[in-house]
Amino acid sequence: MRDFSADHRWLSINTATLRGAGTLDRIIDACARHGIRAISPWRDQVHAIGLERTAELVRGHMLELSGYCRGGMFPAMDAAGRRAALDDNRRAVDEAKQLEAACLVLVVGSLPGALAGAPQSKDLFAARRDVRDGIAATLEYARSVGMPLAIEPLHPMYAADRACVNTIEQALDLCDAIDPEPSGALGVAVDVYHVWWDPKLEAQIARAGRERLLAFHVCDWLAKTRDLLEDRGMMGDGVIEIPKIRAWVEAAGFAGYSEVEIFSSLDWWKRPADEVLTTCIERHRTAV
Amino acid sequence: MRDFSADHRWLSINTATLRGAGTLDRIIDACARHGIRAISPWRDQVHAIGLERTAELVRGHMLELSGYCRGGMFPAMDAAGRRAALDDNRRAVDEAKQLEAACLVLVVGSLPGALAGAPQSKDLFAARRDVRDGIAATLEYARSVGMPLAIEPLHPMYAADRACVNTIEQALDLCDAIDPEPSGALGVAVDVYHVWWDPKLEAQIARAGRERLLAFHVCDWLAKTRDLLEDRGMMGDGVIEIPKIRAWVEAAGFAGYSEVEIFSSLDWWKRPADEVLTTCIERHRTAV
Repeated sequence: MRDFSADHRWLSINTATLRGAGTLDRIIDACARHGIRAISPWRDQVHAIGLERTAELVRGHMLELSGYCRGGMFPAMDAAGRRAALDDNRRAVDEAKQLEAACLVLVVGSLPGALAGAPQSKDLFAARRDVRDGIAATLEYARSVGMPLAIEPLHPMYAADRACVNTIEQALDLCDAIDPEPSGALGVAVDVYHVWWDPKLEAQIARAGRERLLAFHVCDWLAKTRDLLEDRGMMGDGVIEIPKIRAWVEAAGFAGYSEVEIFSSLDWWKRPADEVLTTCIERHRTAV
Repeated sequence: MRDFSADHRWLSINTATLRGAGTLDRIIDACARHGIRAISPWRDQVHAIGLERTAELVRGHMLELSGYCRGGMFPAMDAAGRRAALDDNRRAVDEAKQLEAACLVLVVGSLPGALAGAPQSKDLFAARRDVRDGIAATLEYARSVGMPLAIEPLHPMYAADRACVNTIEQALDLCDAIDPEPSGALGVAVDVYHVWWDPKLEAQIARAGRERLLAFHVCDWLAKTRDLLEDRGMMGDGVIEIPKIRAWVEAAGFAGYSEVEIFSSLDWWKRPADEVLTTCIERHRTAV
């Protein structure tokens, strides 16, 4: 297991962690000031300042992208909706490629309409079928341009609206069905927030192995979580044994960045970027 | 699959659904007025009016108990804490027996202190060990008095504070370890709210079979859930395909009550008991 205590060379900042800090150019500046070597930006943040401008900034600061957030959201009520999702995922692959991201993270989607609060279906089986077909189609294109796809199983509390893939086991079953010979083209993003509770976590991480472990995200689960989406904790402030999970991931062969992704409208998004980054760096060294 | 559309003979009311309606005697009166044949009361509600008084009321109204809520909360930081939990579970078994409940439901507990917002440990493995040992010890006593124990896997969003058993598969693995020959003495309580998202749900319900399926709880998952604990929906108002899950449970041999358990400080607890019960009955017939 790598020693993170001496520096933060393996720290990546998911730019959603700095949603309170303004536009992506300002977030990138802040990261550069703190000697951050890698980021993982969100598409809406990239689009807001432009893909070309983002690429310039990334090159200018010699940043790596530990991932690009996000593709997915495949299920739809009809063929036109599914087609639109595929088109959008193709664009996401192209953007990830232009930014030389390590992978495109897939939040696969679930019941159509649910994210907007108006689910048009209750059929999880149909959603999972759309997800399987959508990933298979997107993989064909992503493989042709050399952009790995990382399925991110989300916590089961997002099963209705954000992702009908909710465990690493389920994600790996999907990978095995779509991409039977692991080549690094399709794998999983392991976010401790989503999977820490899983009794099969250690075994499924081992099963994933180097070829399927494409990203590792950290934050913490607060014992008194006040909001289902935007109350994630800073590493060390919650109950997740992050070093134990990192040890499993690294034992399975993962050697990439540890990416901090904290959705926290109730706390961290209210704080200055410098304070957030200083804390991320300190906790990366002591609690990851 | 039984036809529920004509009457509500298989409807049970978990009395937590009527937390807004006052003391248990009033709740029981309301249930009786609506021709409810079964309830599942909580210990705090029983203790508030007394066990003897509860037993009288239950007998007087010829009510059955589809379960008794709840035992469990086994993990503790030291031997004295674990001993206290076992003593309390023994008392819960005795109370369930006096009320002739179909089973004692176990919410097994997780990280000591987390429920009070101050976790004293992050060790899920230790919590699961305490749970296994606690159930084994309690089963010995419960078996001797003939009170079945139903492990309730809780939704993974309660993994820190309420239960470190979060899937039916995990609960059944525990059952198999503690009680290798299924006899009906140890099994699971399947609550659709906790398990609806699980990709292995159908298979694990089939695996459970008649001997391990001791209780079936219903409510609904609201697409826009506002609170992690107290924003459960009325059957039909959310996204869970309840009839599909009931079909699986019945195909596996379950023939007991369908127990409505709705924690809803944001909505149903604010409404009059008669409105809640009328709605439960209607939805039992149309959405379960």
